[in-house]
Amino acid sequence: MNVLVLGAGQLARMMALASKPLNIAIRAYDVGSKTVVDPLAPQLTFGDLAQGIEFADVITAEFEHIDHQTLSVCEASGKLRPTSQAIKTGGDRRLEKALLDKADVANAPYRVIESKDDLLEAIETLKVPLVLKSALEGYDGKGQWRIKADSDVDRIWDDIAAFLEQAKGRVPQGIIAEKMIPFDREVSMVGVRDIHGNTFAYPLTENHHSNGVLSVSLATGEHQGLQQQAADAFAKVANALDYVGVLAIEFFQVGDKLLVNEIAPRVHNSGHWTQQGADTCQFANHIRAVSGLPVGSTELVRPTAMINILGADTVPDEILSVTATQLHWYGKSKRPGRKMGHINVSGADKAELLARLAKITEILPEQDFPGVKTYISGLS
Amino acid sequence: MNVLVLGAGQLARMMALASKPLNIAIRAYDVGSKTVVDPLAPQLTFGDLAQGIEFADVITAEFEHIDHQTLSVCEASGKLRPTSQAIKTGGDRRLEKALLDKADVANAPYRVIESKDDLLEAIETLKVPLVLKSALEGYDGKGQWRIKADSDVDRIWDDIAAFLEQAKGRVPQGIIAEKMIPFDREVSMVGVRDIHGNTFAYPLTENHHSNGVLSVSLATGEHQGLQQQAADAFAKVANALDYVGVLAIEFFQVGDKLLVNEIAPRVHNSGHWTQQGADTCQFANHIRAVSGLPVGSTELVRPTAMINILGADTVPDEILSVTATQLHWYGKSKRPGRKMGHINVSGADKAELLARLAKITEILPEQDFPGVKTYISGLS
Repeated sequence: MNVLVLGAGQLARMMALASKPLNIAIRAYDVGSKTVVDPLAPQLTFGDLAQGIEFADVITAEFEHIDHQTLSVCEASGKLRPTSQAIKTGGDRRLEKALLDKADVANAPYRVIESKDDLLEAIETLKVPLVLKSALEGYDGKGQWRIKADSDVDRIWDDIAAFLEQAKGRVPQGIIAEKMIPFDREVSMVGVRDIHGNTFAYPLTENHHSNGVLSVSLATGEHQGLQQQAADAFAKVANALDYVGVLAIEFFQVGDKLLVNEIAPRVHNSGHWTQQGADTCQFANHIRAVSGLPVGSTELVRPTAMINILGADTVPDEILSVTATQLHWYGKSKRPGRKMGHINVSGADKAELLARLAKITEILPEQDFPGVKTYISGLS
Repeated sequence: MNVLVLGAGQLARMMALASKPLNIAIRAYDVGSKTVVDPLAPQLTFGDLAQGIEFADVITAEFEHIDHQTLSVCEASGKLRPTSQAIKTGGDRRLEKALLDKADVANAPYRVIESKDDLLEAIETLKVPLVLKSALEGYDGKGQWRIKADSDVDRIWDDIAAFLEQAKGRVPQGIIAEKMIPFDREVSMVGVRDIHGNTFAYPLTENHHSNGVLSVSLATGEHQGLQQQAADAFAKVANALDYVGVLAIEFFQVGDKLLVNEIAPRVHNSGHWTQQGADTCQFANHIRAVSGLPVGSTELVRPTAMINILGADTVPDEILSVTATQLHWYGKSKRPGRKMGHINVSGADKAELLARLAKITEILPEQDFPGVKTYISGLS
């Protein structure tokens, strides 16, 4: 079995590591260089997209922001899993919101914004505070705005208009206005749907972000009520997309209710803990699902946490002396804020996990892991 | 950190898979072709042994039958871990027996045999039944003989003399005569010694062989008395060799005593279950140890078994639907009896593990796994 992954980053790399033992060969299409590479030996190249498609029995993706021409060519080969529509839905907030409504899954009230009048109407009906997000991927750190008071409108609309002007002719960019939800926690669910339509959900994960980037994920197997609610939402979304593979859903928890924040049609950073906390990790299960193999159990084996390594290319070796701690580097060159690797740690129960996390944060340098120690010391 | 592995088989491959997440680059020296390769992309070659040594920060080995010239060159670089003496001891039964005596570790009584008179003396003092083993690796399926009655001597000595004659001038082959021990079980211990001399032992594993080849390993964390006995033997042997890395010891269990059968100065087939049953697998721990990194915990996470796939290059996909079952193929071409891959399966407790093993053996074709179903159905 040969699989081509669209995208050649750490997710393709971890899929390749999980696939070697299954004798499934993974090649990755680097959308930047338009070259097919071996994610475990990137110096090995295998031609262009057409050659990658020729090689593949199955084509899948590690990210959702793939140009539509590439998706069309892959879909035409009959090998793409999930569908291009599912991938596009994860990459376009307009499609995503429409899908959530169609699938009858709770999400924040919203409006599609195409003009200043649309924005004024959104403020009128949804009320401030609002968060405005670009429908497609932003750029240069732009793509999200907050309207806290009606008086913010003129200034922010000017900025949005300039943003849309820049996109014109290149991509069909747009804006979604959402009611800003005061939430208690951010949680996510990674799950998998097989070719027969069966869905399997991993335990709900609690996520902590720093500067908008995932910093810590925690899977303890608690919150069984929320677990069922999230698994139901997962099944609705995955079924509505006729999805095959791993799909992640981020939620806002408001009291005992979950509202979908966004979906990611792929393996997800908040599922990296599955490499040592679950029976079968998300990478193996994604490849199993898209290859038509039986999906492995998504049960929690033991409480496990993940800490992202952002912008640093070393951590003290000493963390490896904390029991049940593993380092996962992505082999990337250092850049500020870049996802460089992650740390997984497990415990027989939550108390043991938290004690090990506390040890790890004693060792990790605060400047490379801002806020992590404070977040973890606040858990119980 | 760069590591060169002497030997380019499945053990080097699994070391490479375990090392990628640590950002440790593994290359493997194929002693057949005398070429350095990437074990995860064998089409990538990197020159000869000298170039491999130049690349490496650390050199280690995946097997013990390495010619002494190669070992000398590697040791002269100052990078070899464990020492050439440790590797040679694993590859020469005369050195191994002398080491076990020196380390004061119980093993079967023996004599070194260099002539027919030596053999007669061994029969006189040790008494039949005896097992005779070549000191170095055998060939063409030869290298082991059994003397059940004194009258077997002439016939068997003729065969041994011919065997030794063939080796003459090539290798310093020899023969060890051991008292044949009527044992209850074969068990093994895989452990690791770090650069500071600390030893860490994985749980004792029960092993089932078919036609002299390992077929099933079972790690349940039972037999705490034997565990301590084996861990003590492990520490004595590893310390006597001033060992660094993973070392395996095979034992015969006779009543509540363990006698060392043989040692393997490397990661070992009976430790493959650690990939999903232990905190840190033997491959990661070997690389951690030889690289000078902290060794990870060797504790059992949950009872786990391994089934070898010998001579077959497919198994029914259906086994992946048995909870907590993983397939590990080695990417090798099919040959009768060849180690092609293995299956790992875990359970929350021994009963659950045995139930899953039973399901797996229902699915596996009997002709490819002779005796496995019978062995497993006899466990309780």
